[in-house]
Amino acid sequence: MGEFELISRYFHAPFANFPNVGRLIETGIGDDCAVLTPLSGRLVISTDTCVSGAHFPVDTSAEMVAARSLGSSVSDLAAMGAEPVGFTLALTLPTINEAWLQAFGSQLYESALAWRIPLIGGDTTKGPLAVTVTVLGRVQDQCLYRHGAAPGEDVWVSGSLGDAAAALSLLGRPDASLTPIERWLYQRYASPQPRLRLGSMLRGIATAAIDISDGLIADLAHICSASNCGALIEEGAIPLSPALLATFSKEEALNCALEGGDDYELCFTAPQSTRDLIQSLSADVALSRIGTLRKESGVSMQRRGEEIRLMTKGGYDHFKESSVT
Amino acid sequence: MGEFELISRYFHAPFANFPNVGRLIETGIGDDCAVLTPLSGRLVISTDTCVSGAHFPVDTSAEMVAARSLGSSVSDLAAMGAEPVGFTLALTLPTINEAWLQAFGSQLYESALAWRIPLIGGDTTKGPLAVTVTVLGRVQDQCLYRHGAAPGEDVWVSGSLGDAAAALSLLGRPDASLTPIERWLYQRYASPQPRLRLGSMLRGIATAAIDISDGLIADLAHICSASNCGALIEEGAIPLSPALLATFSKEEALNCALEGGDDYELCFTAPQSTRDLIQSLSADVALSRIGTLRKESGVSMQRRGEEIRLMTKGGYDHFKESSVT
Repeated sequence: MGEFELISRYFHAPFANFPNVGRLIETGIGDDCAVLTPLSGRLVISTDTCVSGAHFPVDTSAEMVAARSLGSSVSDLAAMGAEPVGFTLALTLPTINEAWLQAFGSQLYESALAWRIPLIGGDTTKGPLAVTVTVLGRVQDQCLYRHGAAPGEDVWVSGSLGDAAAALSLLGRPDASLTPIERWLYQRYASPQPRLRLGSMLRGIATAAIDISDGLIADLAHICSASNCGALIEEGAIPLSPALLATFSKEEALNCALEGGDDYELCFTAPQSTRDLIQSLSADVALSRIGTLRKESGVSMQRRGEEIRLMTKGGYDHFKESSVT
Repeated sequence: MGEFELISRYFHAPFANFPNVGRLIETGIGDDCAVLTPLSGRLVISTDTCVSGAHFPVDTSAEMVAARSLGSSVSDLAAMGAEPVGFTLALTLPTINEAWLQAFGSQLYESALAWRIPLIGGDTTKGPLAVTVTVLGRVQDQCLYRHGAAPGEDVWVSGSLGDAAAALSLLGRPDASLTPIERWLYQRYASPQPRLRLGSMLRGIATAAIDISDGLIADLAHICSASNCGALIEEGAIPLSPALLATFSKEEALNCALEGGDDYELCFTAPQSTRDLIQSLSADVALSRIGTLRKESGVSMQRRGEEIRLMTKGGYDHFKESSVT
């Protein structure tokens, strides 16, 4: 089977009848470019590549590659407060493995449907397995940037942190051997849930936002650096899931939350005057106030009455580390 | 040097002062997404991946990888009649080679400047060398699609065809060993010139258009298939450059033109009534009328009074062929 049939069978066909595409997409896959209908508001765009052996282990299931590749990119839209418009997929494959493609295509469609983001174009090439997703989103009014935060404001995070990092130790294990708690952690890694609704509701309330892909310290440091301030967080306020605490020691759990990436929760800042308003937004995801911004640069943590400086590692740096995450 | 410094040094810095960016780009590299200013008209988008060893030989210079990766994508904008807005770059590198990055970054900037398309975001990852470029463009009125052509209309191509395919045989040779004619052919491959001005002027005149990346037969067949018609072209009307004819036999030159890809010229269709108008557009690139559309499907060629059917190979199919182009 050639490239054209391949794309048609696993990608064109399922996405041909994607709900509501006509509202935003005039022409999808099949011409030199996809064409969007004239859109009001600002368009936002982000590109991310996942390489086999670097971003996921070489034996990762096709479903997980699909869910994580799209999920991590859609999470960037959530962090901007944007509504999904569409995505392109550049898929590099070593061989045509129809079972793999079937599984990848099905999960991609399922995830895209959940986040209401149609596939609008792409490219299929031969080479070592890699997936590049480019997401387009739209914001009617103001975006959530990393800059815009100010000293005195609160620091918030959604959901629980560290679960995805904790799940890394479970990746090699057969599904049947996982306990229910371990399976929950595994899902937190395998199937990220971009906080689109939360991001969208935070526009006009949050002063800065980022999605946690590199770990709390690194990503909060990005907000601080862009906003020219620092942050002091409370050890006891960092949300750790019961599953994480049941599987690891308190210290290990905290390390996962501070340094582990891949949670795709939102970290955002807002004035103290908006606390009640923000708490009222926590209908579908818990929101935790974990600290305060201040003038002094850097990210520090209050721990047993002592203030310790948290060193950023600059996020996950693909050229500094050799470990597979 | 880590990923962040790397990106900053070779990509952020030169593009920070890109001309006229403010007109279209509100926020470029450095947040979760790039943000475009509200744009009138339709937005178009295309993604292409070039993999080392598949789309270019492994020893290809960094400059050529940059010029061809961006050029082939910008050519998709030209084929839609679109004005460039910006592009994202997903760069996968096996190692940090500063000399390579310096050369790649410089050529990328130079090409982007020539085509007035700023870098607005991207991702740098570790793995086998591959470049994915996603281009965004804008069309104020109607786009040039592949559908829309009708029997009785003329088939046109810009420039000369087959030069890039002919240059493939020169790729291994040291620059000093090339004759001026060979060097001209080499440049046609190494440094594609997307026909942005032509594409933009053809809006409202051409009924269908495509850029020739897979070879004349394959790409004209795409127009025919999308427009539900066929084409009959004249052997003698196919534009072959003096350099191509000086280097190869007439028969080989014609094969390069019909089947060779990578020329990035435009192939388009238009009513006979627009012939004078189209000829008047050939100020910066020659335009050749090479045939006529008809109801009978498929692409055929008139040759010495005989009509021969040209078989499409479906373009360059990465999973069917193993040759390195």
